[in-house]
Amino acid sequence: MSPDQKDNYTVALIVVGNEILSGRTQDTNTSWIAEQLNKIGVLLQQVRVVPDVEPDIIAAIHDLREKYDYVFITGGIGPTHDDITAEAVAKAFKAKLQLNQTAFDILVRHYGGEEYVTPPRKKMAMIPDGADLINNPVSGAPGFQIENVFVMAGVPRIMQAMFDDVKTRLKKGKPVLSNTVSCSLAESDVAEPLSALQDKYPSVSIGSYPHFRGGLLGLSLVLRSVNDQELDRATGEVIGMIAELGGEPKALSVQSSGKLLGD
Amino acid sequence: MSPDQKDNYTVALIVVGNEILSGRTQDTNTSWIAEQLNKIGVLLQQVRVVPDVEPDIIAAIHDLREKYDYVFITGGIGPTHDDITAEAVAKAFKAKLQLNQTAFDILVRHYGGEEYVTPPRKKMAMIPDGADLINNPVSGAPGFQIENVFVMAGVPRIMQAMFDDVKTRLKKGKPVLSNTVSCSLAESDVAEPLSALQDKYPSVSIGSYPHFRGGLLGLSLVLRSVNDQELDRATGEVIGMIAELGGEPKALSVQSSGKLLGD
Repeated sequence: MSPDQKDNYTVALIVVGNEILSGRTQDTNTSWIAEQLNKIGVLLQQVRVVPDVEPDIIAAIHDLREKYDYVFITGGIGPTHDDITAEAVAKAFKAKLQLNQTAFDILVRHYGGEEYVTPPRKKMAMIPDGADLINNPVSGAPGFQIENVFVMAGVPRIMQAMFDDVKTRLKKGKPVLSNTVSCSLAESDVAEPLSALQDKYPSVSIGSYPHFRGGLLGLSLVLRSVNDQELDRATGEVIGMIAELGGEPKALSVQSSGKLLGD
Repeated sequence: MSPDQKDNYTVALIVVGNEILSGRTQDTNTSWIAEQLNKIGVLLQQVRVVPDVEPDIIAAIHDLREKYDYVFITGGIGPTHDDITAEAVAKAFKAKLQLNQTAFDILVRHYGGEEYVTPPRKKMAMIPDGADLINNPVSGAPGFQIENVFVMAGVPRIMQAMFDDVKTRLKKGKPVLSNTVSCSLAESDVAEPLSALQDKYPSVSIGSYPHFRGGLLGLSLVLRSVNDQELDRATGEVIGMIAELGGEPKALSVQSSGKLLGD
């Protein structure tokens, strides 16, 4: 391991989205991005949903990009008046927003000729000076990277395609594995032994999540770690704890290599 | 209208949630809260998802509570070791976290006797000094309000029940109405006339959202305003614009009072 190699790298996500804040659109990008990042040992550490308002976007960039290894921004890079992300990012970096010839050429190819790159489409080739383009195999108009900030589309299918390119540029850590064990015990019944297990396994993050399903209160215990063996041991103890308390442990989505409950 | 009465009040939401950041849980509280707030003229203006980490929660509270009229916090008020929100809020306000007798009495009643209020359950009665309790008709353990910060459970059904109480304490603005018109035109085709309409109707916020459905790219134009008549007029013009461009406007979820497309 090289001296600057870390177990995990960190990401903050800025979602530019009036449509999320108005309640119109249910965000699904966060969970998709988080799951992809887990696999390459990168941790999503904060999400900010901000409106389509330039100072709010700029403030979020300044706030986050020194604190986390990478900042992802989704949304607001289309052709309409409410797409202001590229300009906000340019201002945050004090970079000039200018026509990027490569991006323009991509649009000419995508739309089948320069005459089809109307002014609104041309806007999508306005990229901050010094940024690297992010490939968009779905709809042509590229995203871009400037320093540790990656700007992607908000439409899930396009964002996901852009992420293929982004992924190749990120430092990789150790994959984060997760086991989930559910039962129908009350959270307060498991609280004390669970806390003791958390203390015993500091390299495993243990979370407790009550939920209603079909009107019944249930409990999911989620264990996460980059250490497969420790995760396996801790999960085994959680399963034992539930059984000892008279509950019926069910192992769901086990990612560690151990055999748990015969999975 | 009294001098301090505003058209709209503002909320920032802090979601305390490792389970959201890990991708395990899809957040649904944001859209639910946003829609409830629209009805009472309160605007959700920012969402922050932070991990179960005390300094991150405290930093978010300090950052947001001066900038917005209200701050909502969801999650992390249960009985387990990973429930640290009450303590973080207490520290943010430099208030003592102490046993709240009213909260304790609620738990005694809910669980059917003091002997059932085990130490983990008693933890849920530890409330920052000076806070007002928020009623929880679902599972007993209350949320709390301290100054302009409202702390609620993260479990949607419990959060929603607590919101009934929170709602009575908020100043009300003018309800935000929203009309959505969809078509299958490209975003770049509507960009210029839509921008002109946005300029013409400054009291209406117009958003443009492309989406894939069944593999086809579609476009939703969303108009929002507290002014019913302006919203109606702007929506009528958007419908006319789409027709003029050769598209087939479909009016979805019209909240303004006008008859649009015979709805």
